[in-house]
Amino acid sequence: MRLQTLKMTKIKVFSLCYSLVFFILITNAQEHPNLILTKKGVENIKRQLGSVPLFDKTLAKVKNEIDQEIKSGIHVPIPKDMAGGYTHDRHKKNWYVLQKSGILYQLLEDDKYAMHVHSILKEYAKMYPKLPLHPEERSYARGKIFWQCLNDANWLVFASQAYDCIYNFLNNKERKFLEENLFIPYANFLSKENPQFFNRIHNHSTWGNVAVGMIGLTLNNEELINRALYGIKTKNLDHNLTDNDGGFIIQKGQKAGFLANLESPFSPDGYYTEGPYYQRYAMYPFMVFAQALQNKKPELKIFEYKDNVLIKSVTALLNLTDQNGDFFPINDAQKGMSYYSKELVSAVNIAYHFGGNTAELLDIAQKQGSVQLDETGLNVSLDIKQNKIKPFLKKSIELKDGSQGDKGGIGILRSEDKDHELVMKYTAQGLSHGHYDKLSFSYYNKGDEILQDYGLARFVNIEQKNGGGYLKENKSWAKQSIAHNTIIQDETSHFNGEYKTGSIHHSDKYLFDVTNSKLKIVSAKESNAYPNTKLHRTLVLFEDEEFEEPLLIDVMQFTSKNIHQYDLPLYYHGQIIDFNFENTTPPKLLPLGTKNGYQHLWLEGRANLKNKTAQVTWLNKNKFYTFSTLANEGDQCLFTRIGANDPKFNLRKDPGFVIRKSNVKSGYFISTIESHGSYSSVSETAKNAFSNILKIENIVVKDPNYMGWSITTKRGNVHTFILCISNNKKDVSHSINLNSSLINWLGPYYYIKN
Amino acid sequence: MRLQTLKMTKIKVFSLCYSLVFFILITNAQEHPNLILTKKGVENIKRQLGSVPLFDKTLAKVKNEIDQEIKSGIHVPIPKDMAGGYTHDRHKKNWYVLQKSGILYQLLEDDKYAMHVHSILKEYAKMYPKLPLHPEERSYARGKIFWQCLNDANWLVFASQAYDCIYNFLNNKERKFLEENLFIPYANFLSKENPQFFNRIHNHSTWGNVAVGMIGLTLNNEELINRALYGIKTKNLDHNLTDNDGGFIIQKGQKAGFLANLESPFSPDGYYTEGPYYQRYAMYPFMVFAQALQNKKPELKIFEYKDNVLIKSVTALLNLTDQNGDFFPINDAQKGMSYYSKELVSAVNIAYHFGGNTAELLDIAQKQGSVQLDETGLNVSLDIKQNKIKPFLKKSIELKDGSQGDKGGIGILRSEDKDHELVMKYTAQGLSHGHYDKLSFSYYNKGDEILQDYGLARFVNIEQKNGGGYLKENKSWAKQSIAHNTIIQDETSHFNGEYKTGSIHHSDKYLFDVTNSKLKIVSAKESNAYPNTKLHRTLVLFEDEEFEEPLLIDVMQFTSKNIHQYDLPLYYHGQIIDFNFENTTPPKLLPLGTKNGYQHLWLEGRANLKNKTAQVTWLNKNKFYTFSTLANEGDQCLFTRIGANDPKFNLRKDPGFVIRKSNVKSGYFISTIESHGSYSSVSETAKNAFSNILKIENIVVKDPNYMGWSITTKRGNVHTFILCISNNKKDVSHSINLNSSLINWLGPYYYIKN
Repeated sequence: MRLQTLKMTKIKVFSLCYSLVFFILITNAQEHPNLILTKKGVENIKRQLGSVPLFDKTLAKVKNEIDQEIKSGIHVPIPKDMAGGYTHDRHKKNWYVLQKSGILYQLLEDDKYAMHVHSILKEYAKMYPKLPLHPEERSYARGKIFWQCLNDANWLVFASQAYDCIYNFLNNKERKFLEENLFIPYANFLSKENPQFFNRIHNHSTWGNVAVGMIGLTLNNEELINRALYGIKTKNLDHNLTDNDGGFIIQKGQKAGFLANLESPFSPDGYYTEGPYYQRYAMYPFMVFAQALQNKKPELKIFEYKDNVLIKSVTALLNLTDQNGDFFPINDAQKGMSYYSKELVSAVNIAYHFGGNTAELLDIAQKQGSVQLDETGLNVSLDIKQNKIKPFLKKSIELKDGSQGDKGGIGILRSEDKDHELVMKYTAQGLSHGHYDKLSFSYYNKGDEILQDYGLARFVNIEQKNGGGYLKENKSWAKQSIAHNTIIQDETSHFNGEYKTGSIHHSDKYLFDVTNSKLKIVSAKESNAYPNTKLHRTLVLFEDEEFEEPLLIDVMQFTSKNIHQYDLPLYYHGQIIDFNFENTTPPKLLPLGTKNGYQHLWLEGRANLKNKTAQVTWLNKNKFYTFSTLANEGDQCLFTRIGANDPKFNLRKDPGFVIRKSNVKSGYFISTIESHGSYSSVSETAKNAFSNILKIENIVVKDPNYMGWSITTKRGNVHTFILCISNNKKDVSHSINLNSSLINWLGPYYYIKN
Repeated sequence: MRLQTLKMTKIKVFSLCYSLVFFILITNAQEHPNLILTKKGVENIKRQLGSVPLFDKTLAKVKNEIDQEIKSGIHVPIPKDMAGGYTHDRHKKNWYVLQKSGILYQLLEDDKYAMHVHSILKEYAKMYPKLPLHPEERSYARGKIFWQCLNDANWLVFASQAYDCIYNFLNNKERKFLEENLFIPYANFLSKENPQFFNRIHNHSTWGNVAVGMIGLTLNNEELINRALYGIKTKNLDHNLTDNDGGFIIQKGQKAGFLANLESPFSPDGYYTEGPYYQRYAMYPFMVFAQALQNKKPELKIFEYKDNVLIKSVTALLNLTDQNGDFFPINDAQKGMSYYSKELVSAVNIAYHFGGNTAELLDIAQKQGSVQLDETGLNVSLDIKQNKIKPFLKKSIELKDGSQGDKGGIGILRSEDKDHELVMKYTAQGLSHGHYDKLSFSYYNKGDEILQDYGLARFVNIEQKNGGGYLKENKSWAKQSIAHNTIIQDETSHFNGEYKTGSIHHSDKYLFDVTNSKLKIVSAKESNAYPNTKLHRTLVLFEDEEFEEPLLIDVMQFTSKNIHQYDLPLYYHGQIIDFNFENTTPPKLLPLGTKNGYQHLWLEGRANLKNKTAQVTWLNKNKFYTFSTLANEGDQCLFTRIGANDPKFNLRKDPGFVIRKSNVKSGYFISTIESHGSYSSVSETAKNAFSNILKIENIVVKDPNYMGWSITTKRGNVHTFILCISNNKKDVSHSINLNSSLINWLGPYYYIKN
């Protein structure tokens, strides 16, 4: 009897709970969509359709794509393949199909789109409870639909939006089926069952947090929302755990969740410590979840978090692109990724809408040629239509790294005409995707690389290349110091290539001064890359009527307690036209070294330099470039080509040359890179094909607080530079003896033309 | 007394002659300009100025250029430098300045332009009588203004036009000074004093003939005109004389002069035996002299000569370009030269005006964006303005080589959408600029090279590279057979690389059939490249719904009396993505061979192929390509890179692979090249990244008059091809047993899909 009562009570309670849940569901139902699209937003959009060209164009394209897709049927295969393979690509496609179909249902009010979403989700819900881990075992956090949780998280970020869009189209039973079989276990799998994935400071975790958060917001599930925002409590993670890239999973005192991921990797300038390629990747979950939070939890004021860091980060990211809109390939980064990517379309739209309608963003949106199909995209389209656009002028800009902006940074110098762009890296390690390239730089002319950074060694989503994943050459080559335009001591990478060591250090800015439009300067120091060694690089983008185009001056100072060998490689593109020294080419090619990336370089030529200015001229895309460097007796120029020990042809066979100084304690590399002239293969005329520089000389200043150099042109003019290397204050005055006359100046550097 | 009388008579006669000359001069004076510009033409142009956009735009640009130039003064330095050097470039610039200033004087009636021409010519006239040969001694025909007569001839072709324009501006004394000191001795130098330059069948001589002819026409000097048209009588030339490229100066029974140069190197189809790059170069003198002859000697009917060969040659040349308008680099040819060159602007205008106003030429003229500043350019501009343009649709076309069209040819296959273009070469040697590449081909996709021809080894007019002249690697690499996509026996070039032998042979067309738009075929035989060896290559551009893009089928048959090694190299661009065999990469790179071009190839990998279909996939410019070949046990794939034994970095370090068959008497290379899919580095998606071909098989036909092959796709369809190799007649019927059933067909090939 008692048992019976209890049973009855249980049933009553259950029934009450069920009614309550039903009530809540009904209430929520009335509010959907309310995640990215909102009821009010949808009404607003529908009123404007047909009169907002960019929005209309995007919608028509998406409609066409999804109409084709619906005709092709439902495809939810049992997960099997790596990236690039069928099941991977199909599930990836599905998440876009879900999201877009949901949007079309809302905007076009055609039930077929809702039905398509529902049909697909049902297939997933049928499959999911029985799914084991994905058969591919290589990930530190294996997924179920994909080989890694990361991709599973991607799926849920999009699928949540689709579910929100068709929520009201479904009945309670249908919703219950999807939530119990798919969404709730899916969210738990990504978080509770994979804390090593969910609880990190890393773009992976951002995706994980946002996946859980998006479905949490859709379901009004506060527990999931809190899990997303603040991470999960776990004490079981080993501090020595690493991910597939060698990055640590957890560090002492580390917070977790979306807010922590917003706090820690972003600097106050909006620079994301992994670099722009991964910032772009993380941008979508950051921005779209912020948008959802703003819609559903405006009291969080998420866009104002950390002094508007999300909005700032969009501007930072746009400034981290070359003239083509391609991101500078800092750290692991596939070249060609640009602000034309869908993540940036979304980010620019959201930043415009929620960040105060900055008219310059419309310039980028117009170039992108499509918008996000919600109120943010509507806003952008309307304002472009009303011609509120202002040109987005990229600036010479410094972006500090570190959550407090205290861990070095990126310095970008741009020429007055914006054609020449120099990017210097003096950041922290950049988490597990970081490269060992302190004080490296890359250099561009009209969006073409003059001196390149290699980027990553990976063919993202090309199945034949290791399933689209990182190649082993990423570690053996791309991350190594020799793969970058920076200094290498004793053929060993910075921090000996050790992530643990690299992660506790960062370079320090010395100068970033672009107030003189003709002499822009960035300068930074690195004291930890090698033991007992101090490195100080100064790069000057110099414009003078003597030079047809900007002159890049590169001064690398090294000071060590012991005798070492120093290499300074430069990776150019194109064809060598001339050099002013004797070069010996070997009858057979050998690798330049055996480890630390040196094993991947063929040595194509070796020259012993004399005590004078050595020059190399090359031609690339019909432009001439000349590198000049002050050589000392015993210095060498090594002509190299990437590609040794590369049995699968995973590396690009790009050329370079290395200036080598052997058996030195301290010294300088003082070099210049001229862009000059042009060649036309139609008129067959070469203009200004020769360097304008006669010689580079070191100016010996007795006071060790200073260093100096001069550049003498063929016209006979002498450009003299003196740099104070111990005090970077702008308001400090200096006075030294130069050529037996006293010179005085204010601030860290002195320049004169004679 | 008698003496006195004689003297008086002489004076009288002289006086009479002088008066006569003066009278003639006066008469002529009234007729100038009458060379390229004509009095009537100038009047006509002046009436239209301001209402012919393309003409007006060109004129404004030229005026701006010359106005700047006049401000900079007169520069006629003592000749000294090689191509690319100051004096060379300045004298070259002067010839354009002269010509353009002359035109501006006529069209704008501003005396400053005439004065500028006169001032420059006076400087030349002062300098010329004392000028020794140019100090650079390397040419077989040294010039005075330039290092070779060729450039001196260029100068006179343009300067004659300038002189014609200002003829009436000058007084008799001024004219006499120029003619006696400059023009007459200049013309004599180029002809009488350099018969080895003037009397050849070669583009050099064409320039020489036209130079003498143009000044002859300007001066109404019949003797010079005849010299230009028919060459000079000389018996002193040694038949073993060669030019700098190793070409013979004179051959038995050889005619000379402009008409002989029009007769011999042009085929009835308008193909010029040296190839399109040099055809383009010779086109200007050919066309502009023809225009001058038409103006002054219309009775010659020069444009109708040899069945309108000059007009045909312009159409031929336009068909010899890829989608970007770049000439296919057949024989010595610098890549990037295109129909945007000034020579082609001129040729298209003249062909339009004198060749019956073919509306398709206006399409090219419009793309060129400028016109020749005379009546031909006016005609083009007016008709473009009146929108008479028809699209110039490039066709699949065969261009026969040989003055009678009987020495092989060039076969161009174009896909239905015109994106894929295949160029097969089965011509004669092509004079001294010919390469040893019988039956070679190159292959394009939307103007990008899929499989490249190397072109020449030279940086035209880049002074640092051997004064802009041919590099020694042109002979040691670019001309050799291994530098081309063709077959090589025993690592020896065709004809053993001997010009004398190569010059007496040519390949023979077997088939050129483009009537089936889905199966276009070109096939040719070569019996002289190697002793006792017959080569027969068949290329098929095949379109079928199974293949996303056209499939190229390449069947190379070789039949020899003895055992040999055969190599078939293919030079691709881009990055290897995958191959389906074991490859060994060496720890050090060695050259593939020691001579005949092999010494310039590094061997990057070597694979022993098994008895099956070997495949290599690569990615270039975001497109995938797969090469498949039927391999036999013992065949090898050698991965190569150009650049060994290249101490001055004169060669492009381009990749290739060689399929090698060793110790065989006879056999086939049966291969396909698929273009498929795409990669986007913005969306990071790879579409259709895999080959669609499962296997290639040889079909053994018992009758030696046939050969066959089949291509099985991954879908399981079999494409079967049978080729009759002994009878190319279209109307012959064939009947063979295939898989124990009898098949019958008409014409040289059979195709079926199962």
